[in-house]
Amino acid sequence: MIRAMTRADFENFWPSFQAVIKAQETYAFDPDMDIEQAYQIWCLTPLKSFAYIDNGQVLGCYYLKANAMGPSDHICNCGYMVSEAARGKGIARTLCQHSQQIAIELSFEAMQFNSVISSNEVAIKLWQKLGFQIIGTIPLAYRHPKLGYIDSYIMHKQLVVNT
Amino acid sequence: MIRAMTRADFENFWPSFQAVIKAQETYAFDPDMDIEQAYQIWCLTPLKSFAYIDNGQVLGCYYLKANAMGPSDHICNCGYMVSEAARGKGIARTLCQHSQQIAIELSFEAMQFNSVISSNEVAIKLWQKLGFQIIGTIPLAYRHPKLGYIDSYIMHKQLVVNT
Repeated sequence: MIRAMTRADFENFWPSFQAVIKAQETYAFDPDMDIEQAYQIWCLTPLKSFAYIDNGQVLGCYYLKANAMGPSDHICNCGYMVSEAARGKGIARTLCQHSQQIAIELSFEAMQFNSVISSNEVAIKLWQKLGFQIIGTIPLAYRHPKLGYIDSYIMHKQLVVNT
Repeated sequence: MIRAMTRADFENFWPSFQAVIKAQETYAFDPDMDIEQAYQIWCLTPLKSFAYIDNGQVLGCYYLKANAMGPSDHICNCGYMVSEAARGKGIARTLCQHSQQIAIELSFEAMQFNSVISSNEVAIKLWQKLGFQIIGTIPLAYRHPKLGYIDSYIMHKQLVVNT
């Protein structure tokens, strides 16, 4: 049900991806990027990308990459997307739990989200339930089409104890 | 004295750059990266890079880029480096003030540093004097060769008032 995301998977998911970035309510991505730029950001630049498949359809996906280099490369960063039609079914939770397992397998020790939009209460509550904490607030970081300038949060979870 | 950084400038500065990343006390960069990777990160990926020149020598430099895309592309990110021999002369301050001016000219509204190592007290005090605030703390984000796991700070300054 969750597997490494292929180019075909990404093409299958592209209409959902495009709807998310065009809405400009959750991601700090260029709303007008094309499929090649999106594929680069989601599947080529990251270390890993996974797709959630149901009945041959990609309902959600995530990427995982190091959040910084060298002496900070033990912290990873992930991004998750679920198609609008598939929301409320626990797919984001399943993807996040899967990503934490993969992160540990890849020897990451913590996970950080750099831009959780403060109006995205569903996501914030879910990440908090899964053990993430708000460790910073970026003032007026996101130009929301309805709400204007709003804050973004930085969220973090320690996955394994440092020794 | 401060000008757009050329490839020749970067080569001139490379021994200082390499000393900084090898020390692993200030930057979350791979300490073993080569000049091509460093040039990519410092001069090609960013929007702008500037060098501080004195007597034909590059004593310091900085890059400037957007910190995120789309609805968050009004916040920029910078990184500064000064050669060890040239420290304590106000070059970092001069570079940071220059970068704020350039950022405003490029229509950025705020500046964010994503990884200020908590042991780097000289830098933290300087950024605070220049109007930056600590807006977040990433726990155990940096593996310091002498101090072990230490926190990093996220620092931010509003450059122009949002309207």
